[in-house]
Amino acid sequence: MKGISILGSTGSIGRQTLDVISMFPERFRIIGLSAGKNINLLKEQILQFKPHIASVKGKNDAMTLINELTSESVKILWGEEGAEAVASDIKTDLVVSSMVGASGLKPTLAAIKSQKNVALANKEVLVMAGNILTQEALKNGVSLIPIDSEHSALFQVLRLSRKEFVKRLILTASGGPFLNLAKEKLSDITPESALNHPTWKMGKKITIDSATLMNKAFEIIEASWLFGIHPNSISVWIHPQSIVHSMVEYIDGSIIAQMSIPDMRIPISYALSYPERLPLYDSENPSRVFSELTFEDADYEKFPAVPLAYLALEEGGTMPAVMNAANEIAVQYFLQGSLKFIDILRVVKMVMESHKTLSGESINEILESDKWARSATESVINGLTSRNN
Amino acid sequence: MKGISILGSTGSIGRQTLDVISMFPERFRIIGLSAGKNINLLKEQILQFKPHIASVKGKNDAMTLINELTSESVKILWGEEGAEAVASDIKTDLVVSSMVGASGLKPTLAAIKSQKNVALANKEVLVMAGNILTQEALKNGVSLIPIDSEHSALFQVLRLSRKEFVKRLILTASGGPFLNLAKEKLSDITPESALNHPTWKMGKKITIDSATLMNKAFEIIEASWLFGIHPNSISVWIHPQSIVHSMVEYIDGSIIAQMSIPDMRIPISYALSYPERLPLYDSENPSRVFSELTFEDADYEKFPAVPLAYLALEEGGTMPAVMNAANEIAVQYFLQGSLKFIDILRVVKMVMESHKTLSGESINEILESDKWARSATESVINGLTSRNN
Repeated sequence: MKGISILGSTGSIGRQTLDVISMFPERFRIIGLSAGKNINLLKEQILQFKPHIASVKGKNDAMTLINELTSESVKILWGEEGAEAVASDIKTDLVVSSMVGASGLKPTLAAIKSQKNVALANKEVLVMAGNILTQEALKNGVSLIPIDSEHSALFQVLRLSRKEFVKRLILTASGGPFLNLAKEKLSDITPESALNHPTWKMGKKITIDSATLMNKAFEIIEASWLFGIHPNSISVWIHPQSIVHSMVEYIDGSIIAQMSIPDMRIPISYALSYPERLPLYDSENPSRVFSELTFEDADYEKFPAVPLAYLALEEGGTMPAVMNAANEIAVQYFLQGSLKFIDILRVVKMVMESHKTLSGESINEILESDKWARSATESVINGLTSRNN
Repeated sequence: MKGISILGSTGSIGRQTLDVISMFPERFRIIGLSAGKNINLLKEQILQFKPHIASVKGKNDAMTLINELTSESVKILWGEEGAEAVASDIKTDLVVSSMVGASGLKPTLAAIKSQKNVALANKEVLVMAGNILTQEALKNGVSLIPIDSEHSALFQVLRLSRKEFVKRLILTASGGPFLNLAKEKLSDITPESALNHPTWKMGKKITIDSATLMNKAFEIIEASWLFGIHPNSISVWIHPQSIVHSMVEYIDGSIIAQMSIPDMRIPISYALSYPERLPLYDSENPSRVFSELTFEDADYEKFPAVPLAYLALEEGGTMPAVMNAANEIAVQYFLQGSLKFIDILRVVKMVMESHKTLSGESINEILESDKWARSATESVINGLTSRNN
């Protein structure tokens, strides 16, 4: 019986993780759940999965839950300390890190330092502090098992051959909803159309990041840290069907790919059961599940996010964290209708250019740069907006 | 330094194996070469690769070579004993078994019994005597490493996860040159058009087997023996581009595929260097190597070879050997212009129906059935021909 705690249990990945866990009650039990503001769903999850410990973002929400759950034996906490307590609870074997954005960093680090294996859906924490997280994982003897479909694919395939035989990693990208939109039309994009992803149903932030290809940019950084592969040996191929989740090319010309229909429960179940596999799709008479797979090169003039990732990795230190923070704020403004789609990347680039990179060897330095970047991004956006008005 | 001997060195796989070996002289040396009648090419190979031992089919050819190679220290032998001597030479670490058809059986068995690892390109020997060969390999502690691109793909991928997590093997098939030809037109096919394979350059026999899909039928039998997988868990998907060489589907819905451009040197090099990989395609700036992959179901009414394989495996014993022998003769007659393309399968089926299956537990029983089937096939073909005239 594996004890699982979920950071971000009411989000898209958190909910699907609970779906998988409810399919295999003989294998997993929920120890802790941590959420943000969706206390109604968290309450339902607590009643169904009976965790020992749960946490929300705000104290008031925590008090509400405590009052509403007097008959349950769950301990309710709040804030960053609450999430860290969920992440490090003694009965937990595996922490699913699926909080959105930078807020997941400290709880994820707490999980690693408490010697928990981490199933990582929150790529931003690796973008911000990949060096620190991978070093800590090594020091504490824990596995970082990616949930991102691309990195799960690479993680599955890289078990095959020693790293010296790997030529490159090939990340696939759906290309998002605007793959075939003319470059001139990118400025007209509304949040509604950007949220309409062709192949995956995901949270809002990551859906916008898919539309700008910033998600793929982050994935390059994530892959580089997770697998210790130089960014020059990581390529991106556009693959609109999202069937091939990623590939490893070897020095002999052999390419090994992991594929499936787009269903996040597959990488989630692999992360939960690794190195075993769970019978998610165990039908008696399996049929052919795809008929056409296409691949093309990415247009980096139209979508400049990926080149930014190579730049950020080359610069190193706090720069990837600044890139992440600037993007998080810019996406917020876009979703509120206060920033044009095409300006998301422009703003991120301007913030990166004005950043004086620090070594990024401590979490505090990274969090300081994150904070600086958020405020710098707001200034840049306000500057743009006032000029436009 | 790995000592390699090649059974069938002047054939397509034999020549490509020597190509790979000549790229990595620091890793491999040729110990023995065995060929059929192409003594001019064998002579060149002997002069270039300096084997200790070589063998040809006929005594006269052997004598000719002995006379022409007086300055070389190579020992020249002939016949089945010659090939078996090459297969079991003491300095050999790995025997590449790439003779065409049933003639490879005894030399391949000799290699296994001499505790040589075998790189197997000759699928017919597994079709004929899969039970005996895999049992002997187990008993002698040797690896059977497939060279067939499909089985190399499966061999590479199956190292990933334990067999209990495998749902099925998916063999890909180019579909051959007549994939989109109307069924009514199959009777007009000439040897010339059948020899024009869309994606692979191969020997004549295997090219015809690709056109009838008999090659895929044999591959099902081969895969079943090599990997110990029940034939019901082996599917065939038509994939005209021959980029995905085969796939393994797991119980969690994950499919792992091995891909490459169609180049037999890739599976050959993997078999030679397993479990390592050789830098065959080690370019500095790799590009995208494919753009469209399509998959469809096979039309077994048009190409009934695959269902015959399931029947032969179900019947077991000597039946697969009879299927193989009948096909070998029928293809010979087709290539000579004495049998219609569409009658190849018809003849194989008639011979199988008239066979009284034996247990096939001894090589002699298998060779007897092989002999019976060849003669029965000639009778059936003569019957057809006289009726047609």
